[in-house]
Amino acid sequence: MAQKYTTREEDYSKWYNELVYRADLAEHSDVRGCMIIKPYGYAIWEKMKDILDAKFKETGHSNAYFPLFIPKSYLSKEASHIEGFAKECAVVTHYRLKNAEDGSGVIVDPAAKLEEELIIRPTSETIIWNSYKNWIQSYRDLPILINQWANVVRWEMRTRLFLRTAEFLWQEGHTAHATKAEAIEEAELMLNVYADFAENYMAMPVIKGRKTESERFAGAEDTLCIEALMQDGKALQAGTSHFLGQNFAKAFDVKYADKEGKLEYVWATSWGVSTRLMGALIMTHSDDEGLVLPPALAPIQVVAVPIHRTDEELALITAKFTELGLQLKSKGISFKFDNDDNKRPGWKFAEYEAKGVPIRLAMGPRDLENGKVELARRDTKTKEVVDFENVDLIIEKLLSDIQSALLARAKAFRAASMKEIDSYEEFKKDIENGGFFLAHWDGTKETESKIKEETQATIRCIELDREDEPGFCMVTGKPSSKRVVFAKAY
Amino acid sequence: MAQKYTTREEDYSKWYNELVYRADLAEHSDVRGCMIIKPYGYAIWEKMKDILDAKFKETGHSNAYFPLFIPKSYLSKEASHIEGFAKECAVVTHYRLKNAEDGSGVIVDPAAKLEEELIIRPTSETIIWNSYKNWIQSYRDLPILINQWANVVRWEMRTRLFLRTAEFLWQEGHTAHATKAEAIEEAELMLNVYADFAENYMAMPVIKGRKTESERFAGAEDTLCIEALMQDGKALQAGTSHFLGQNFAKAFDVKYADKEGKLEYVWATSWGVSTRLMGALIMTHSDDEGLVLPPALAPIQVVAVPIHRTDEELALITAKFTELGLQLKSKGISFKFDNDDNKRPGWKFAEYEAKGVPIRLAMGPRDLENGKVELARRDTKTKEVVDFENVDLIIEKLLSDIQSALLARAKAFRAASMKEIDSYEEFKKDIENGGFFLAHWDGTKETESKIKEETQATIRCIELDREDEPGFCMVTGKPSSKRVVFAKAY
Repeated sequence: MAQKYTTREEDYSKWYNELVYRADLAEHSDVRGCMIIKPYGYAIWEKMKDILDAKFKETGHSNAYFPLFIPKSYLSKEASHIEGFAKECAVVTHYRLKNAEDGSGVIVDPAAKLEEELIIRPTSETIIWNSYKNWIQSYRDLPILINQWANVVRWEMRTRLFLRTAEFLWQEGHTAHATKAEAIEEAELMLNVYADFAENYMAMPVIKGRKTESERFAGAEDTLCIEALMQDGKALQAGTSHFLGQNFAKAFDVKYADKEGKLEYVWATSWGVSTRLMGALIMTHSDDEGLVLPPALAPIQVVAVPIHRTDEELALITAKFTELGLQLKSKGISFKFDNDDNKRPGWKFAEYEAKGVPIRLAMGPRDLENGKVELARRDTKTKEVVDFENVDLIIEKLLSDIQSALLARAKAFRAASMKEIDSYEEFKKDIENGGFFLAHWDGTKETESKIKEETQATIRCIELDREDEPGFCMVTGKPSSKRVVFAKAY
Repeated sequence: MAQKYTTREEDYSKWYNELVYRADLAEHSDVRGCMIIKPYGYAIWEKMKDILDAKFKETGHSNAYFPLFIPKSYLSKEASHIEGFAKECAVVTHYRLKNAEDGSGVIVDPAAKLEEELIIRPTSETIIWNSYKNWIQSYRDLPILINQWANVVRWEMRTRLFLRTAEFLWQEGHTAHATKAEAIEEAELMLNVYADFAENYMAMPVIKGRKTESERFAGAEDTLCIEALMQDGKALQAGTSHFLGQNFAKAFDVKYADKEGKLEYVWATSWGVSTRLMGALIMTHSDDEGLVLPPALAPIQVVAVPIHRTDEELALITAKFTELGLQLKSKGISFKFDNDDNKRPGWKFAEYEAKGVPIRLAMGPRDLENGKVELARRDTKTKEVVDFENVDLIIEKLLSDIQSALLARAKAFRAASMKEIDSYEEFKKDIENGGFFLAHWDGTKETESKIKEETQATIRCIELDREDEPGFCMVTGKPSSKRVVFAKAY
């Protein structure tokens, strides 16, 4: 009997946790809040990384690497930054272990105490701007366009695989500019890079917007974000791009001489996406049978399973699929022929379904005889028997169709889950069912926090593309110039 | 006036440090022992990483990611492992900061003390084997062939950029096998992958060998290594591949059921190379003018500098080089056209020389008129004027010639710096001049440590390919079956 898994309807959160294990993506480690990203999960992350990295390079950025450790005093230099991160910092205080004198085992050597404690980076603005100080003298040294792929640590009390972990992997871009306009343009450019990646590779539609002051990154003057809608109606912040103004330049005294020799503070941005995107990917497309992957991010795009009784049949099927494998490889399509004899075809079908392989082929003796192959599509779970000849062309087109179909489905879901709302009473009721709500807000922190307290919903963002529309705050009735996006969020 | 740099002859160590800065590869950070890898240095490391990663995948390995933190108790489970790493562990003891009550600033919150201290991984055998315990039940789960790209921390007191830093980047392979023979084969396979990479990409000849017991990795039964010879006659261990026996399987109680259902401990290997390879690359090829890069690892393989007086000349030269750039791109050759008007050609020449760009092109008005281009070769510092037509073909061949020439030069240097020696008196004198010394050794730790104490030379390895040759230990006169390799080392 196959194991019984929780369905999305029964318990979405449990379904998610089970799916991460079932598809062999990641697991909890014994270290509180830290996860182990397993090979299949890491292969998807690697695909994301490679695509994003190419986009960063196309837009003029280079990679570099800055230290894991940040001296406590650096982190403290920008007031709102330390305020935002102080409560979740892993702190290194000692640099040596030794044998306990009473023979009880290995202990931290009290003699090896650091003069100044080191913080494991929760983000790298401070350590990077401390370096930029030495790199920037004149306008000729600008812009600096650097990205870093790294691990960061934020000591979270309630963790969930991929969505919220104490240690996570991410990239963080940190750029320095001569003018405010150029920095703002950079922050917008990178937001568009993220949105393009989300839509065209993850097949996940996103709203591009601006955070309210209370939801801003600690140390930013403006935080842009992309917000996606998960299947359970909760929003997920999938990436952020910050215009940091001159805050870090002032904290670290980074000035440049302009063409006239006048000293000015440098303007900054930072932007990042993390392994959280894995969670977003899962919760955008997957179903009760397991993971559903857009072909652009699938480590295995096509899997082929032989169905045979005799070794001779296996040899003939193997020959067919080997040939097909070469054809697909030449088209850049990743293909796996699973001839593991220890496992039955039915087991394999369920396994690749759970792992979200977009296309599954199967060939039995009769197909072989008739020059046919069975082709199953993961997203729609439809099957058809097609001619083996030219199946490579069918596959090529189908992969592209599946990619578009997933995006279209996610867009349709979002459209159906997004509505304008004017009554706070209605809002309080409807928000329980999930979705994005477009409502008027009076622009005050007080109202924002009242709504959050009473409904757990937050302003996800003020959409960049939304047109002005005069109205009245659903809570206070005060005037509002434009609707903003509310949702409950991950 | 150009800045005066230290030559290799004047002070090799100073030359190295200056070169790392001059070529813009890396710099010291304010955090003790940690370096910042700058974009140009990181671009070289990325090339290394990409090539190695492809080789790991070709040999059946997958990437995964395990936590940065290791509970102190895990690290202690394998006795010699903790013995080897205890003295250089960065220890996390707290997870929160807070404002000091006296208003003096931010302090570590004493209430946020961890129950068990966490060690920043110095290497990941323990955290990984703690997971493998759950992943392995039967012979069907084996082998596990996993690699991880990560940062690790070993608290070193004396650090040098790339060669020895508290935090460094590396890859660590961790494999699990059903049989001893298979694990040994894996350790040898990966040693060969490293040796192939060193010779064919880094153009750095290496000796493949086995460490003596006292130089073994803490927790290994056998440590294989590749040893390279730097220009100053000192050896550098460039990569290691360990056969770990059943040590970690026993420490973490990892057993598998064989085909008969009998429980057996699992066999293990681990293997790694790090950003230390950057140091090896620098000290194998570079000269007093700066870095010399093998084309296979050069982020920019060809740079072109226009030499013009008028804008019209610049436009014509630009058109020529733009066309060439496209030709080279289609051949997979990386090309940069440097038309920065703020810098003079002479400055650019020195800059790209310092950065080790293998081929430099320059074109002035007369070249333009005659259909010529000046082509300068970084490794030999020779220049010639060639026809612009078909220069792409010349470049293609030349890059391959430079790659071979660098390896040949390094091999010749090593051959000239390697000698058999039988008298300890002579050895003590000659070792001061550097080089590899092939000498007989009686196989005891006592003699090994006496030699180390008296000369600072260590046994780099017992060569895998060296044939047996009966002789007598140069120190004790006791019988020896084979010469071993001595050198002073980084």
